[in-house]
Amino acid sequence: MGSSVSSRAALPPQWSGRRVRSSLPTVSGRKSGPVWAVERWLVGRLLSALGSPPIALVLWDGVSIGHANPKARVKIHDRRTFWQLLANVSLSFGDALSDGRIEVEGDLLEFLEIIYRCEETQPRGGLLDALAEWRRRPRANTLGGSRSNIHHHYDLGDDFYRLWLDREMVYTCAYFPAPDVSLEEAQTAKMDLICRKLWLKPGQTVVEAGCGWGALALHMARRYGVTVKAYNVSREQIRTARERAKAEGLASRVEFIEDDYRTIHGQCDVFTSIGMLEHVGADCYQQLGEVIHRCLRPAGRGIVHTIGRDHPGRLNAWIERRIFPGAYTPSLREIMDVFEPRSFSVLDVENLRLHYALTLQHWRDRFEAVAPRVEQMFDAAFVRAWRLYLVGSIAAFRTGSLQLFQVVFARHGSNEIPWTRSRFLTGHDHE
Amino acid sequence: MGSSVSSRAALPPQWSGRRVRSSLPTVSGRKSGPVWAVERWLVGRLLSALGSPPIALVLWDGVSIGHANPKARVKIHDRRTFWQLLANVSLSFGDALSDGRIEVEGDLLEFLEIIYRCEETQPRGGLLDALAEWRRRPRANTLGGSRSNIHHHYDLGDDFYRLWLDREMVYTCAYFPAPDVSLEEAQTAKMDLICRKLWLKPGQTVVEAGCGWGALALHMARRYGVTVKAYNVSREQIRTARERAKAEGLASRVEFIEDDYRTIHGQCDVFTSIGMLEHVGADCYQQLGEVIHRCLRPAGRGIVHTIGRDHPGRLNAWIERRIFPGAYTPSLREIMDVFEPRSFSVLDVENLRLHYALTLQHWRDRFEAVAPRVEQMFDAAFVRAWRLYLVGSIAAFRTGSLQLFQVVFARHGSNEIPWTRSRFLTGHDHE
Repeated sequence: MGSSVSSRAALPPQWSGRRVRSSLPTVSGRKSGPVWAVERWLVGRLLSALGSPPIALVLWDGVSIGHANPKARVKIHDRRTFWQLLANVSLSFGDALSDGRIEVEGDLLEFLEIIYRCEETQPRGGLLDALAEWRRRPRANTLGGSRSNIHHHYDLGDDFYRLWLDREMVYTCAYFPAPDVSLEEAQTAKMDLICRKLWLKPGQTVVEAGCGWGALALHMARRYGVTVKAYNVSREQIRTARERAKAEGLASRVEFIEDDYRTIHGQCDVFTSIGMLEHVGADCYQQLGEVIHRCLRPAGRGIVHTIGRDHPGRLNAWIERRIFPGAYTPSLREIMDVFEPRSFSVLDVENLRLHYALTLQHWRDRFEAVAPRVEQMFDAAFVRAWRLYLVGSIAAFRTGSLQLFQVVFARHGSNEIPWTRSRFLTGHDHE
Repeated sequence: MGSSVSSRAALPPQWSGRRVRSSLPTVSGRKSGPVWAVERWLVGRLLSALGSPPIALVLWDGVSIGHANPKARVKIHDRRTFWQLLANVSLSFGDALSDGRIEVEGDLLEFLEIIYRCEETQPRGGLLDALAEWRRRPRANTLGGSRSNIHHHYDLGDDFYRLWLDREMVYTCAYFPAPDVSLEEAQTAKMDLICRKLWLKPGQTVVEAGCGWGALALHMARRYGVTVKAYNVSREQIRTARERAKAEGLASRVEFIEDDYRTIHGQCDVFTSIGMLEHVGADCYQQLGEVIHRCLRPAGRGIVHTIGRDHPGRLNAWIERRIFPGAYTPSLREIMDVFEPRSFSVLDVENLRLHYALTLQHWRDRFEAVAPRVEQMFDAAFVRAWRLYLVGSIAAFRTGSLQLFQVVFARHGSNEIPWTRSRFLTGHDHE
């Protein structure tokens, strides 16, 4: 790993682009001049509109406005940043925090949880919301668009992710049988939970759409004796996954294919997709359902594991622009567009929201432990952006702004399904 | 029970009405004259359109058309019935079978499963389907409409249901920890499963919307120490439920209220509705969500247990007209209209389809054992109609035409939720 601290060049263009844009010379605190009365008044209005949460804002004159005994203090260092925040707080907050134009004093997680809970109480659906939505049209998930969207996040360099993910490099929500088990154990428990939910039998064929670095595909082949075809459009991930399959002697039973889920062909007994639906885009759910319909054998079943929401709504603008371009986190109603047009039978839905919050806490702790090395690999702004992304995600899952759904389904009318879900916990059909 | 075989007068008007209509003099087989070539041709076309299933039709001349070695033979006794079937098979089949104008020779269940599976392969959404849908507009679920719809089915007389339901008189899908447990055990297991899914604590308050004869409300109070307000618009059921509460000394902790779910008021920790959503009607789901939103405390949670479908579609016309007026069985996407407008968080969905098939098999067996007494209470047409309803429902659940969903939900953002679902199986949070 030591010799690989050289992946600065691997930074995708969006990331470098953002850094170039954000390092444009900003008006320094001194140059911003005195804070105007209208600016102070606006801060007061904003805090009161948010329900007077226990936070304070400090503008570039150093005067604190808001709660007298705040849980967190947001320091805004210059006038330009202040007005950018007013114009588009969702997007600008993340950019300004990454660039150091604002700082949060106090517990960032606590601060973000407060903000998320405030947001939930705000009325939705006004004209300004509509305009903001229009401005935020995501990059389309065409075949080329998807590839570029995925490249942005997942091709930051395996070395980067290896620094703070678990040993198996699983970059999706873990399953903690109890809150105090380790991240490594929880990721293995998650893979086993999924395998039990799919009641895999030796010799069966599995298709995986969106396979990351291949941990689940290899786990299924290794422990459950199935053969797997695993798809991913991230070149770096597929390369690593293939190396792992070869090193483990599993290359004959696990095929890693660098391609889009829409090109999946052939027949399978089991369809699995863990953490890919977020990147599919709601307008392509029916197309995903068609792919499953085309591939799945009559007694087939599958699982879709995805971040979701309690009601339809867009991702935070900054996350969607800077972290996961093209991503969308659907409500269960929207997720049903994958299943209902072809009458798949939903057997089971489990919400693991708090498990994702805990997974992210592990990632954040590990990330902080290697932050100096990450700063060497990229820069300080990158570290601050990723800190915000990880902590913001913890806050989103803890406040319920985001959910994590595992949806198990079978072909319509298939009676080759588990008798009770005790099979999912114990591997046996009856209690 | 002996003295109560006098409930003929309790038969609601729709039932008597149907019987009067259906006993209009029909043209007997002899009077129908010879079978025309076009009729024989139509039968052939019909069977071929259904994919040539292993069944045969016998018209009033006694000649068998269709499969040479059929699993079942449908005998149509007269020309008028034949043409009624052609005009509206879904509705007329049930009526004609009840009246004895057609008969099914062979295994009725096997025959109905064949038909259900054929139906699933037919294309949907043509003009004729649209016309049929329009003709079938269900009776509105206004406050008065609901009361009348419920009266039709649930006020047939407790004595009737007592003849063949389990000891506790639970008239919803049971939960069989293993397929060979008794119906009584399975209904108790279902009630315990629901109570575990709701992690009831002594002293908490529960609202039940649609409580049948009160078995679950009494079970919750008796075994879990909660207090329950249980609503139902069926006068007969509420009367019996109150008597049971009094007899058990639970009247101070279980209040049975003869009223519509829309009138529910006050605050509760837990909301539960088992087998009522089918009678709510899709246009009132959001209203139900509002009722829950109004009542539920911040750490509140609830369960909705309902018959559903893999894709949106109407109930069989005969079931909707003769058995459950105003009923509708929604897809999961439709069910989300209860939860998403108010951002309830869906924690868990379990599909118990095959458990309902097995529950219905128990009911059918028990019903057949007392069929002579039921015929005394009502008449032979009533017995045939209920046989068709019970066996048709087994077929619907076995073929996947119907599903059974249990949806557990909590208030948006509430973190007072179980850590894992092992709590639902074992009562403990961690595996």
